[in-house]
Amino acid sequence: MREEAKEFLKNLNIAVIGLGLMGGSFAKRLRERTKCRITAFDCEAETLNKALADGVIDAGYTEGNEELKKADLLIVCLSRDNMLSFLRQNAVYLREGQTLTDIIGIKGNSVEAAKNLLPDGVDYVPAHPMAGREGCGYDMSRADIFDCANYIIVPNKRTSRKGIKIVESLAKALGCSHIPVVTTKEHDRRIAYTSCLPHVLATALVNSPSMDGRMGRFIAGSFKDATRVADINAALWARLLLADKKALLQEIDRFKEALDKVEESLLQGDKEGLEEFLKEAGTRRREMIREYRKGQHE
Amino acid sequence: MREEAKEFLKNLNIAVIGLGLMGGSFAKRLRERTKCRITAFDCEAETLNKALADGVIDAGYTEGNEELKKADLLIVCLSRDNMLSFLRQNAVYLREGQTLTDIIGIKGNSVEAAKNLLPDGVDYVPAHPMAGREGCGYDMSRADIFDCANYIIVPNKRTSRKGIKIVESLAKALGCSHIPVVTTKEHDRRIAYTSCLPHVLATALVNSPSMDGRMGRFIAGSFKDATRVADINAALWARLLLADKKALLQEIDRFKEALDKVEESLLQGDKEGLEEFLKEAGTRRREMIREYRKGQHE
Repeated sequence: MREEAKEFLKNLNIAVIGLGLMGGSFAKRLRERTKCRITAFDCEAETLNKALADGVIDAGYTEGNEELKKADLLIVCLSRDNMLSFLRQNAVYLREGQTLTDIIGIKGNSVEAAKNLLPDGVDYVPAHPMAGREGCGYDMSRADIFDCANYIIVPNKRTSRKGIKIVESLAKALGCSHIPVVTTKEHDRRIAYTSCLPHVLATALVNSPSMDGRMGRFIAGSFKDATRVADINAALWARLLLADKKALLQEIDRFKEALDKVEESLLQGDKEGLEEFLKEAGTRRREMIREYRKGQHE
Repeated sequence: MREEAKEFLKNLNIAVIGLGLMGGSFAKRLRERTKCRITAFDCEAETLNKALADGVIDAGYTEGNEELKKADLLIVCLSRDNMLSFLRQNAVYLREGQTLTDIIGIKGNSVEAAKNLLPDGVDYVPAHPMAGREGCGYDMSRADIFDCANYIIVPNKRTSRKGIKIVESLAKALGCSHIPVVTTKEHDRRIAYTSCLPHVLATALVNSPSMDGRMGRFIAGSFKDATRVADINAALWARLLLADKKALLQEIDRFKEALDKVEESLLQGDKEGLEEFLKEAGTRRREMIREYRKGQHE
């Protein structure tokens, strides 16, 4: 199946828009695993020169131009606002028959806006590769961030079946795991739970009034893991959390429901109830990881 | 300093009581790094035979006996209840001048009980190596679990300065990081925050009503990390959480205070306030990790 995906991409001309951590990783992995032609667009000439020297792109441009028209598949690796600016400025270079996908983490406030900027006939396939790592910029990009990552496709009424297939092939060629196809609403609801909420919990944990300067002497793996993502890109995440605010507020409420059960058991000294709760958590965690790993063998 | 610690332990006769994950790891690391004599006591003959075959202990016994008297330092690697039983049954083999330490994770309900079972003149140095890994039993034990781990010493009125020094040398020889010395109350308060609370948050997160069988297709690193410890030894942790119940309930309240701030910012659409909160979290996390790492170079 993955071989098929590579074969499918072989003759494609791919444009990567924005050669930062994500865009650079796309280019690196595609170069490593496929024969497609890769053109990059990034406002920094230095970044393009690095990527050319690394051999991960075939050509690079600091501005949109006629070359964009040659692309069969455009992968826009920009934040929401930068993507919208890019589309506004470069709609003239986009044409019927092209597939355009993105990597925006919250879809509710980006899909409609982007759709309205695209010329008719451009097949827009919003997507969300759940890959990433600390840091930002081309220098931090790495081909292996896609290994075993989930890659969510979030089509809308305008997305064609062919467009979905192309992005599925892309995700497979990258080495991703599950490639679920869901609505915008389902995407944002699930992401509120699996991504926004853990970031909120991690930041709230270190921001507890109990934290003090000596606490690093009393931590072990559980606290380190629970707070890893608290070292956060504050501006980016404030935007993302607010963009998914409605679903996130509901997830916070649901989380509190579960937390209340623990509190109640502690208050009552209900050892059995507490043990039951913890057992259930263990079962759920193992089932979730089993489901997650299934994608790696599909 | 670490060389000094090894030198100090060189001629000691050490008894490890309970050769499970922790006891086995103590024996393996001490064998690797010191010249001390290691005797193990464990109810399973098979475990002792394995450890003898591995060369990590010099002698092993399935029951307490006169050999216990020869030990200069006893490291009791048992749960609270098993430790109390052991002390009850073997007090007759303990003698003045011995140092006895343990690894119990919550001190409030174990120190007094243990103290009352010890013969006069046994120097009791309660401690908490913040090392560990998944699984249990000798087969899962590993010398390297102590690398960069914090090792908390929790003396009481009966603990001598010499006893504290001995356990400090032990922790250094094992390769541990910080070795703070605190009261029972401070220990249990800090552990409620750095260990009990993260375990509660991880289990509450997977036990949210939002979890369903497909969620493994929508997760990435943040959710995996946030729930790693949700796959928990339910019986053991129900006991530990209840033993530290008072401090833990306070930590849950304080955590909720921080969580409420996020909720308020979201409700108000207060981007600046949210960004400020996230920035503060990043700063705190980095400072904590800096403090944690300091211990590795001391």
